[in-house]
Amino acid sequence: MTQVRPGDAIFSFANGTIGALGVAADRATDARKPKEFGSAGRNWAKTGWLLRVNFTEFAREMHPKSYIVEIGTLLPKKYSPIQANGNGNQKLYLSEISEQLGMLLLQIAGVESLSDVRQDLEHDAETATAEEEITTDRQIGPTEKMQLIAARRGQGKFKANVARVERGCRVTGVTDIRYLRASHIKPWSRANNRERLDGHNGFLLSPHVDYLFDKGYISFTDDGSLLLSPRFDKTVLSSWQIRDNVNAGSFTRKQKRYLGFHRKFVFKT
Amino acid sequence: MTQVRPGDAIFSFANGTIGALGVAADRATDARKPKEFGSAGRNWAKTGWLLRVNFTEFAREMHPKSYIVEIGTLLPKKYSPIQANGNGNQKLYLSEISEQLGMLLLQIAGVESLSDVRQDLEHDAETATAEEEITTDRQIGPTEKMQLIAARRGQGKFKANVARVERGCRVTGVTDIRYLRASHIKPWSRANNRERLDGHNGFLLSPHVDYLFDKGYISFTDDGSLLLSPRFDKTVLSSWQIRDNVNAGSFTRKQKRYLGFHRKFVFKT
Repeated sequence: MTQVRPGDAIFSFANGTIGALGVAADRATDARKPKEFGSAGRNWAKTGWLLRVNFTEFAREMHPKSYIVEIGTLLPKKYSPIQANGNGNQKLYLSEISEQLGMLLLQIAGVESLSDVRQDLEHDAETATAEEEITTDRQIGPTEKMQLIAARRGQGKFKANVARVERGCRVTGVTDIRYLRASHIKPWSRANNRERLDGHNGFLLSPHVDYLFDKGYISFTDDGSLLLSPRFDKTVLSSWQIRDNVNAGSFTRKQKRYLGFHRKFVFKT
Repeated sequence: MTQVRPGDAIFSFANGTIGALGVAADRATDARKPKEFGSAGRNWAKTGWLLRVNFTEFAREMHPKSYIVEIGTLLPKKYSPIQANGNGNQKLYLSEISEQLGMLLLQIAGVESLSDVRQDLEHDAETATAEEEITTDRQIGPTEKMQLIAARRGQGKFKANVARVERGCRVTGVTDIRYLRASHIKPWSRANNRERLDGHNGFLLSPHVDYLFDKGYISFTDDGSLLLSPRFDKTVLSSWQIRDNVNAGSFTRKQKRYLGFHRKFVFKT
């Protein structure tokens, strides 16, 4: 536990299944035994370490036993979490594996990029922290709190503010606001409260375009050209019948400043 | 305050602007003066009524002064919230307007259906209540709590479960799970905890298809035909290049049961 460093990847292995990938949020700290352990932890020491880990389930679960041929030679000689026959080692709670084995497991689970997973988990954690901060901030009145929280989902006051700057989806041409999401250009989680409600910090986008923009698979140049991430599967664009040479039109000066942030910190390079 | 009934529509009017539409969540209850009133409420009684109202901002703000010709004749003779010159009446906190004036205001604000707004607000309130219940339920372990909360956003264990039943988006054909959302067929807010994680209670849908399905603008017949709500603007389908005669394929018996719920309670008729 004490050897784990923030950002380290941790595989969850239970009932013969590797089902989730975790990323350590920080180093382990001293802590008392959790009540949830109940009678199962009766013989364990009262104190130990607490390690905060953000987990995400794999879309594809993985049964190491089915891959034991590939995995076998990469298992650690000592303290291996998996036995030579592919079953788990019940005596171990947390143990180290090599980078090579880790990369193989990620590949089997269909994870293309560990840094993407890290970024997504970090984003979720930042969002939760920011919401907590807004909720408990005694300087912010109840109406503004509601507006700030609704803005995260692209709703309420923020959407109304964006609708005063934008006419419709710059990619598909839909103008009826009922079918559009208000996307933050500089993400809600990394914006300050003024930027979270700023109508210039948003586009009205069709939900699929919003999804790609939010995840950083696409962005725009200052003159409106569509940018496609090298990590984006372009066949998706044709399935969605979006032309890759679409021009999004011209932006306000403020929108361009936010777009600079998006290209630098959100767009997947 | 005591005359308000659950479901009543309430317009928020401040600074010359009607900016939000509220729906009363229940009847008023006795309550103490809120601390937030501060010195502004110094001369008010210590006790009064608390009325829970769920508000949503209008996408288009409305300035009654600009519409005073249309509104003027419909204003109440007594206790009117708006004066004959279009300015507000500062002496009033909450007052009644006629159904006719209410409908006109909704029309000006671009609200097509009050019952849709009611349904959306009720859905949001139910979701918040259900999340609170899960979070505070001492019978549910931390892992399952995480899975249930993530399921609301179509993520984690639920998405993995759906991916074991579904191959890809039944409308656009995209199969790469990174570009798809896991949509609940019977909505998360109205499902029980087993149904919230049931892989048969979901489709993998492209984000724009997910949006239409989630809002009840589209549904499917048991044999896979696309159903379009009469309240859906079909030009959006052509902007998104989705054919209205697309067939979604065949469903499992369990999916059909959930679909029955979707057609009955989510699909906008």
